[in-house]
Amino acid sequence: MQKFALIVAGGSGQRMQSDTPKQFLPLNNLPVLMHTLRAFDFDDIQVHLALPKHQIQHWQELVEQYDFDVPHQVFPGGETRFHTVQNGLQNLSADDGLVAIHDGVRPMISREIIRQSFAIAQEMGNAITAVPLKDSIRQINGDHSSALERGQFRLIQTPQTFQLPIIQKAFEQPYQPGFTDDASVLEAAGHHIHLIAGDYRNLKITTPEDMIVAESHLKA
Amino acid sequence: MQKFALIVAGGSGQRMQSDTPKQFLPLNNLPVLMHTLRAFDFDDIQVHLALPKHQIQHWQELVEQYDFDVPHQVFPGGETRFHTVQNGLQNLSADDGLVAIHDGVRPMISREIIRQSFAIAQEMGNAITAVPLKDSIRQINGDHSSALERGQFRLIQTPQTFQLPIIQKAFEQPYQPGFTDDASVLEAAGHHIHLIAGDYRNLKITTPEDMIVAESHLKA
Repeated sequence: MQKFALIVAGGSGQRMQSDTPKQFLPLNNLPVLMHTLRAFDFDDIQVHLALPKHQIQHWQELVEQYDFDVPHQVFPGGETRFHTVQNGLQNLSADDGLVAIHDGVRPMISREIIRQSFAIAQEMGNAITAVPLKDSIRQINGDHSSALERGQFRLIQTPQTFQLPIIQKAFEQPYQPGFTDDASVLEAAGHHIHLIAGDYRNLKITTPEDMIVAESHLKA
Repeated sequence: MQKFALIVAGGSGQRMQSDTPKQFLPLNNLPVLMHTLRAFDFDDIQVHLALPKHQIQHWQELVEQYDFDVPHQVFPGGETRFHTVQNGLQNLSADDGLVAIHDGVRPMISREIIRQSFAIAQEMGNAITAVPLKDSIRQINGDHSSALERGQFRLIQTPQTFQLPIIQKAFEQPYQPGFTDDASVLEAAGHHIHLIAGDYRNLKITTPEDMIVAESHLKA
């Protein structure tokens, strides 16, 4: 069954205190996004990459500069993550197969989790990567907050992997602000969500500290 | 006003795949716990350290071996974190002042947050360190899970700092299994919880990966 990866790189770099969007920052001498794409370059996975329109030229320059050889197709992102993925799913020009949707700024994803995620999605319709909480959690409500039982929660990562016809159909819904990830779109379409075990190393690079952490993981 | 730090080090090392409890593992050539104690060694903060009874002798050997010069008093931990803190609060032999209760395995805590936490607790009664979620979050319910609005949640760190009479009184309650941190004890006693901004660097060392992360933060 054809496997696709949809890598979503929408960041502007504001939280990185940097003019360079975080997906382009060098991690062990290679831009973050190249690590991410390389992670999906096995088992004939077809890689598609969403970038903000104004970053596409810069990306193509980087590809040349680094002699980056992972085959991939680039398409322009939309107004929100939802619109970007909606675009991407239409762009695949396929109506069967499996698609792993993954954050461009999660370069530490392992082949093991990617493989697992395709396998479970093939069997169950979807596979959403998640990890338990290490810290206590509280719910805030205006000025107040209350303790919760952390065992009842999971932090959601990517990849979020789906049977293509199911997720394409789900993305025909009108946009809702609550659509913060692809699983929430599928859930709103009435589907049952299957969580699979992620990995604390699979961090989302959001702050300058995360670059240090990712670099040390890569070296270890 | 007298300031106390109650450092709670109860870990057994099981999750670290190591025979050495994680608080004793060397981080940049110094045991984790010594970094933590050193972080509180300013502004005349009186440092108290809770250790499992059978680890106290080993700790004293380490103190000698490393010529560790942060003044502190050691007391034996109880059956759960709740009982340990309950013990510790009784051991302070003070009934006024402020106490910062802190995880022994959070060595990366900054003076800035410690200071802030004492200042807010003095003013408001308590100050609980917390950070927003970077990832999406789902609530699990047996085989099912549902998306939540991550902006409504905070991950809770330490220090959790209190006016001593208030927290001593709260710890007179009978133990409940829901008492996963000190804020939940105070909340159960009917108090309003004040969250203050923590720091993603202030991680809790739980897994071998966390040691790598902490080491790279220290070097940066």
